[in-house]
Amino acid sequence: MSTYDQSAVTVLGLGPMGRALAGAFVAAGVRTTVWNRTPGRDRDLVDRGATGAATAAEAVAASPLTVVCVVNYDAADAVLRQEEVADALKGRTVVNLTADTPDRARSTDEWARAHGVGYLDGAIMTPTPSIGTPDAVFLLSGPEELYERYEPVLAALGGSRTHLGADIGRAAAYDIALLDIFWTAMAGYTHALAVARAEGVTAVELAPFAGGIAQILPALFTEFATDIDTGTYSGELNPITSAVSSLSHIVHASESHGIDASLMRVIEGLARRVVAEGHGSDGFSRVTDLLSRRAH
Amino acid sequence: MSTYDQSAVTVLGLGPMGRALAGAFVAAGVRTTVWNRTPGRDRDLVDRGATGAATAAEAVAASPLTVVCVVNYDAADAVLRQEEVADALKGRTVVNLTADTPDRARSTDEWARAHGVGYLDGAIMTPTPSIGTPDAVFLLSGPEELYERYEPVLAALGGSRTHLGADIGRAAAYDIALLDIFWTAMAGYTHALAVARAEGVTAVELAPFAGGIAQILPALFTEFATDIDTGTYSGELNPITSAVSSLSHIVHASESHGIDASLMRVIEGLARRVVAEGHGSDGFSRVTDLLSRRAH
Repeated sequence: MSTYDQSAVTVLGLGPMGRALAGAFVAAGVRTTVWNRTPGRDRDLVDRGATGAATAAEAVAASPLTVVCVVNYDAADAVLRQEEVADALKGRTVVNLTADTPDRARSTDEWARAHGVGYLDGAIMTPTPSIGTPDAVFLLSGPEELYERYEPVLAALGGSRTHLGADIGRAAAYDIALLDIFWTAMAGYTHALAVARAEGVTAVELAPFAGGIAQILPALFTEFATDIDTGTYSGELNPITSAVSSLSHIVHASESHGIDASLMRVIEGLARRVVAEGHGSDGFSRVTDLLSRRAH
Repeated sequence: MSTYDQSAVTVLGLGPMGRALAGAFVAAGVRTTVWNRTPGRDRDLVDRGATGAATAAEAVAASPLTVVCVVNYDAADAVLRQEEVADALKGRTVVNLTADTPDRARSTDEWARAHGVGYLDGAIMTPTPSIGTPDAVFLLSGPEELYERYEPVLAALGGSRTHLGADIGRAAAYDIALLDIFWTAMAGYTHALAVARAEGVTAVELAPFAGGIAQILPALFTEFATDIDTGTYSGELNPITSAVSSLSHIVHASESHGIDASLMRVIEGLARRVVAEGHGSDGFSRVTDLLSRRAH
């Protein structure tokens, strides 16, 4: 249906992730136009064959598809919601890979509809070095038709793409939930390393065992998921009382070394509340129920 | 050197983990004596060939090696630090697989030395169903000679055993640090599921992607470990300012659904403190430095 060159893309935003995305498009032979608010970030990409645009409007006019990857939606809005940019985008499509909340995705979708711009919202679930490799993971939501049309170009970014459906907020919802897991795990790791250090254990000594803990998580995540969706919360093998016991050991060991244990105290508090409510023989998964209940 | 039957073991404590340990010894053909404070927990094990002892003293007298696995060291002390039990243990060895803090391991080691009891402290890093399978992970610390002597019997528990050295507190230090990672990750997951549910995403839908997040952790843990041991804290690809941005999105999305975000607020606060101290271009690993500094 389009008269555009389907294998051309514009990338707005040339931070580390934006440069990785643009670099992957260039490497895959996609005609790539780039722009960044602060000039000078495009040099290496231009050397490799990208076209540097002088303005955002000029950039988006160069391709049927514009990929946006900036720090947050305030930054995305500041670029996209300018009259000349919106005019240039009319009839074209934006894939917004900027991370933010589902609300912001819905608001951008409304803006896009009002301006005749096709809109897909997306999230990048893997670190910058994964881009262009089989390890990259992209989540997308928005109209099926737009996803089907641009999937072949997005495939240049490597890895896997999952279309989560037409609900525009879905990619951001997954993103928020998955970043929640990621950052709590990383925070736990930084805390664990502080405790280990105080006990004379180096980070390099602990790291392989920490990796072993990460490896047991996927199976437990799957088990918890069924518990939570069905409301069974089985604690037969690992009751939340034993989590409380572990957590209090961690708090004690941390604080005995003068290490801030406020993170662990919050988790211990959630587990203790579940026990206090009479669910001590349930599993730790019951915490989701505790947290969700506050939504009502 | 011993006149004992080296392939005999006593297990004190028959909670889910103690029963799994005793069951693995029985299945491997090790002569196994079991005891639990509350009677009646040994029936299934006795049916399979274990010997049920009437008292803890009788139980420990039956084997050169006693494995203890109870809820914490208060419970372990209540069993071991009785005159008749200590007398029966003289010249024998205890492997304490009860989880607690390094301090408690050191205290139990002092008690064991004072009573002529050999002592190894240990930690079980994998869930109950892993016991007796190749997936089990055991960490042990204490005298090399005792470890070498009893490793062949402990091998009946399956999986891998790592001797972390003679420092008796080391297994507990690793355990605390690794449980820290485990429980923060699980807490993040339960929180993520609450947020996902509020956005209409089920746990079963999110779980495979959550597993994908777990899979990227080991490589990042290794990278962080080098940063932390060398004090480099590189944030070139992922500065802590971008973590702050992600964390504030998570807090906002959670609280917009009335979901308690105190866990994420603590993590956001730590990251913001690193930025406020002028390290915004460093990586999130700098949080370990912030936490450790409080120890001095």
